[in-house]
Amino acid sequence: MQDRYVAYAIDITDPDDPRVDNFRNLTNADRRPDRPGGKGLVIGEGTIVVERMAGTRFSPTELLGVPRKLNELQAVLQDKNVPYFCASPEVMAKIVGFHLNRGVLAVSPRPAPLHYDSVLAGARTIAVLEGIGDHENLGALFRNAAALKVDGFLLGPRCSDPLYRRSVRVSMGHVLRIPYATIDDWGTALEALAKYDFHTVALTPQHPSDTLADTIAVPKVAFFLGAEGAGLSETALRAAHRRARIPMTPGVDSLNVATAGAIAFYERSRLTEQQAK
Amino acid sequence: MQDRYVAYAIDITDPDDPRVDNFRNLTNADRRPDRPGGKGLVIGEGTIVVERMAGTRFSPTELLGVPRKLNELQAVLQDKNVPYFCASPEVMAKIVGFHLNRGVLAVSPRPAPLHYDSVLAGARTIAVLEGIGDHENLGALFRNAAALKVDGFLLGPRCSDPLYRRSVRVSMGHVLRIPYATIDDWGTALEALAKYDFHTVALTPQHPSDTLADTIAVPKVAFFLGAEGAGLSETALRAAHRRARIPMTPGVDSLNVATAGAIAFYERSRLTEQQAK
Repeated sequence: MQDRYVAYAIDITDPDDPRVDNFRNLTNADRRPDRPGGKGLVIGEGTIVVERMAGTRFSPTELLGVPRKLNELQAVLQDKNVPYFCASPEVMAKIVGFHLNRGVLAVSPRPAPLHYDSVLAGARTIAVLEGIGDHENLGALFRNAAALKVDGFLLGPRCSDPLYRRSVRVSMGHVLRIPYATIDDWGTALEALAKYDFHTVALTPQHPSDTLADTIAVPKVAFFLGAEGAGLSETALRAAHRRARIPMTPGVDSLNVATAGAIAFYERSRLTEQQAK
Repeated sequence: MQDRYVAYAIDITDPDDPRVDNFRNLTNADRRPDRPGGKGLVIGEGTIVVERMAGTRFSPTELLGVPRKLNELQAVLQDKNVPYFCASPEVMAKIVGFHLNRGVLAVSPRPAPLHYDSVLAGARTIAVLEGIGDHENLGALFRNAAALKVDGFLLGPRCSDPLYRRSVRVSMGHVLRIPYATIDDWGTALEALAKYDFHTVALTPQHPSDTLADTIAVPKVAFFLGAEGAGLSETALRAAHRRARIPMTPGVDSLNVATAGAIAFYERSRLTEQQAK
């Protein structure tokens, strides 16, 4: 019989067991480090995300899951000396506060934030976000960036915490893999971008602006993306070297910001592939 | 004082008032015509969607909303002889079964489905969907299609009902404006597409496939889009004239289907604009 105890399994039958306190009441948003009592723990859900955590700065320190998932995670956990709390779906639901159909959760402490140097050095394509408060949009931007070859993110003024559980899930774990740095003011962000010779392109439906393809055939591109509805601030629009638009039907609402980002990332990827031929 | 009774207002103070039965318990999915007791009513939420309904086959026959929203909708409702049931937010929440922060709802009977002839005649770019069961993805596809100049949809095998409330909302009302026809088998769909000389392009990350730009510089394009995860069926892949891929990072999960669709629609729109120069 195969040995399934790759990490060390601990059976949990009592939902009030204090050993699983880090997984308790996940719907409560107070896990953020800036909230009273918030530990700022990073939570990954489901096999794919947990596997992605393993090779990163967010390596799991504890897991909670149904027995079957421990088998699935054998390969990534075999050299990790971490507890896997084994529980039935019912006990798990009582601990986390809702029925979780992904069957496994991992916790990681929040590592020190990255400095922008480590995001920008070596990067060719990055995205600079302003006012992205919606956790799902933030997660979707990271997922799209991962698929479409974006190297990193700067999170500018008024963005949410991308390590919040819902962002991690929607990103399919890519917020844990694509490097990002938080910069709270445009002054610092622009200095950082200039230091690394980024050509800055503000994505906006406002006229006048050029087509995407005409603005990004340069070695290093930083896309400025603003929140749906409000769009980029005047500060951001003025700071960018160029403004680019996606050709759209007049009178139709702008695209969702993660979708607009995907289109910009695609166009960049397409041009890069074409130039390489 | 301005006359606010453009449609005729009826005050509703009792949540059990039978006159608002068509707005009752909206979370219940049995409103579909194929469910027992389902009326198949189309529900629009919020001022923007209600305004969009006004000029379409889905013109509202009844509205329920807070008094303030009646003012906002004055222009679109002024020549409509329909009841606007006026209720407080609290009474409205009791009727619909949850707190609705958009403040207004409109109901329309479900019109007869369109024949594919009326979708395809005159169209240059359409999308053919297979197995899109997720209502939000379906809604997002229509929203993206509206922004990026797609003329219509064919809903192939195993797609959800795009007139379901959540799809209508996510589409921002565009499922009510972009024509679509439902075709349950590929045989009929392919005949229809051939009749109108559509060049069919299956979007797939599978190799071998060509780049998007190389496949769609033709007068009429039909994009085949399949569900995330499963992707298009073998039948669909074999039936398409060409297969196109979006250049992606190896090993990263495929894009969300609505995002992949947006990229294809963008590329088509970009090439059309370029050819027109």
